[in-house]
Amino acid sequence: MSKLLAVGTVAFDAIETPFGKTDKILGGSGTFVGLAAAQFGVHTGVVSVVGGDFPKEYLEMMNSKGINTDGVEIVENGKTFFWSGKYHNDMNSRDTLVTELNVLADFTPVVPESFKDADIVMLGNLHPSTQMSVLDQMNQKPKLAILDTMNFWMDSALEDLHKVLKRIDVITINDEEARQLSGEYSLVNAAKKIHEMGPKYVVIKKGEHGALLFNNGKMFFAPALPLAEVFDPTGAGDTFAGGFAGYLAKTEDISFENLKNAIIYGSNLASFCVEKFGTQRMEELSGDEVKERLGAFKELTQFDIKLS
Amino acid sequence: MSKLLAVGTVAFDAIETPFGKTDKILGGSGTFVGLAAAQFGVHTGVVSVVGGDFPKEYLEMMNSKGINTDGVEIVENGKTFFWSGKYHNDMNSRDTLVTELNVLADFTPVVPESFKDADIVMLGNLHPSTQMSVLDQMNQKPKLAILDTMNFWMDSALEDLHKVLKRIDVITINDEEARQLSGEYSLVNAAKKIHEMGPKYVVIKKGEHGALLFNNGKMFFAPALPLAEVFDPTGAGDTFAGGFAGYLAKTEDISFENLKNAIIYGSNLASFCVEKFGTQRMEELSGDEVKERLGAFKELTQFDIKLS
Repeated sequence: MSKLLAVGTVAFDAIETPFGKTDKILGGSGTFVGLAAAQFGVHTGVVSVVGGDFPKEYLEMMNSKGINTDGVEIVENGKTFFWSGKYHNDMNSRDTLVTELNVLADFTPVVPESFKDADIVMLGNLHPSTQMSVLDQMNQKPKLAILDTMNFWMDSALEDLHKVLKRIDVITINDEEARQLSGEYSLVNAAKKIHEMGPKYVVIKKGEHGALLFNNGKMFFAPALPLAEVFDPTGAGDTFAGGFAGYLAKTEDISFENLKNAIIYGSNLASFCVEKFGTQRMEELSGDEVKERLGAFKELTQFDIKLS
Repeated sequence: MSKLLAVGTVAFDAIETPFGKTDKILGGSGTFVGLAAAQFGVHTGVVSVVGGDFPKEYLEMMNSKGINTDGVEIVENGKTFFWSGKYHNDMNSRDTLVTELNVLADFTPVVPESFKDADIVMLGNLHPSTQMSVLDQMNQKPKLAILDTMNFWMDSALEDLHKVLKRIDVITINDEEARQLSGEYSLVNAAKKIHEMGPKYVVIKKGEHGALLFNNGKMFFAPALPLAEVFDPTGAGDTFAGGFAGYLAKTEDISFENLKNAIIYGSNLASFCVEKFGTQRMEELSGDEVKERLGAFKELTQFDIKLS
C-alpha cells in the first residue's frame, strides 16, 4: 500500500442550504480528501495550517481515522481559515458569504520527513507556487502527482500555474475551468490542449453531471449517482478527489484501466458526502455502505451489448 | 422482428449554427425517428403530413431506407411545416426564428391499415389528444407505447396530457420538463411522481449530459458521447428516441435489461446525428460505423470493479 500526501485546507465552514444552516463546522479540502482516502485504510498525511481556535477534537477525529496530522501546523495566535456560503434551491450554485483567509494567508506548507517519500501526492486548490513548493520538498518525483486548481488561479497566477502543470500527472478541474484554461468549448478539445500543458491525465468534474477522465485520446465517464436529496454539496469535489487518490494509493496501480475504477470510487464516496452537512456523513460512513452503493453504480452504468 | 409505428412531423428546417447555415432542408421528428430505426432494419411506418411543396425525393429517400410512408398524408394545396432556428455558440441553447405550422395546424393522423397491429408505437411531440387518437386507432394495445412531449403541452393541454400518460408505457422528456411536470427538482423524485401518472418507464434526456432511464426504483444512465465538435444538434433527441424504439422493435424484448441497451443504442445514434446538418449524417451512416462507436461507448462507461 502506497503513502498518500494531501496538501490542502483544514478549515471552518458555515453552510446554509434549503434544508437548514450550520454554525462553524469542520471543513476544508485537506479534511475531505483525508476522510475519503481513509476509507481505503491508506497511510495518509495531511499538510495544512490551522489557528489556535481549532478544536483538538477535530484533529483527534482525523487521527482516529488513520490520518496523520503531523503536517498540520498550528499557529497558536492565529485564526483558522473560515468560509461561509449559501446554496440556492437547485444546489448547483452558491453564494460565498464570508471568506476569512486568516492563517492561510501566510501558509507555507512543510512536508513532514515521514511523508517526503509519499508515492501519491494530492495538491489541493492553493496558489500554484505553494503547490510547487510541496513538489520541491519531496525526496523524489512521486509516482503520481494530482493537482486541483480553480479559475481564481488562472486569473491571478496563470504563469505559476503553467509551471506546476508541467510537473504533475493528473489535473482535476471543473468544466468551466477546463474551458477557461484551454480556450476550447468542447471538453474533448479542452482536454487535448491541457494534455499539452503537462498532465497526462485530465479529470473534468461536472458536478451533478459526473466526471470525465481523459488520457491522450482515451476517455472514461463516471456519472454522479442521482439522489433523491442532495443535502449539502460542500466537500463533494474534494471527497471525489480523495476517493480517487485513496483508491490508487491502496491498489498501487496507475494504469488507465485502474484510474477508471478510481474515478468510480471517487464518485461513489462523493455521493455520500452530500447526504449530510459538512464531514458528518464521511465520518460515520462504513465499508459495507460503500460496497452496497458501488453495486448501485454498477447497476446504473453497466450494460451487456455484444459487439461480435 | 416487431413493427414500429412512428407518429411525428416531417418538415422543413432552416438551421444556423456557428459552423454555417442551411436553406430549407429535410427535418421533423418523424423523419429522424424513422432514419434512426432504419439502422435496425425494422419495419417502420411513419404517420405525418406534408404540403404539396414537399419534394418527392425526400419520401423516396425514406422509402429506400425501408421506411413506409403510406401514412404521410400529402395536402397538395398546403405548405409543409417549417421551423427555423439559430444555435448559440455553446450549442446548448437556441433561438427559434420561424415556426410556420402550415399543414400541421389541421393534422389528423390516420394510421394505415398495415400498421394498426404495430407492436411498438412512438408518439412524437404533438398535441396530447392527437397522440391519443393514434392509440385509439390501433387494433389492440401495443406492446410498448412511447410518448415524447414538451413544456408547451404542459402549459396548454395538461389535462389531455395526463389522459394520454395513463395509456402509455414510456415517456421521454427533458430534465426541465420532468421538473415542470412533476413539481420536483430532484430527477429521482420527479421520475417517481411521473411513474404515478402512468408510464412505467421514464426516460429523462439531459442533452450533452446524457439520459436517465427510471423504472420504479431502478435506474440506468447513458452518457452522451463527448465529441470534439457538435455541428448541428437538430434532431438528436428524436434520433435518440428512434434508436431506442428501433432497437426494442428489432430485439422484441422489453425487459429493463434490454431497455438499458436500447438507451445506449439511442445515445450512440444521436452522437452521429449531430455531426452534420440535418439528416445528412443519418442518411449516409453505415452499420460498421455504428458498431465501432458502440465500442467507444463501452470504453467510455464500462469498468471492472469486483464486489465480492
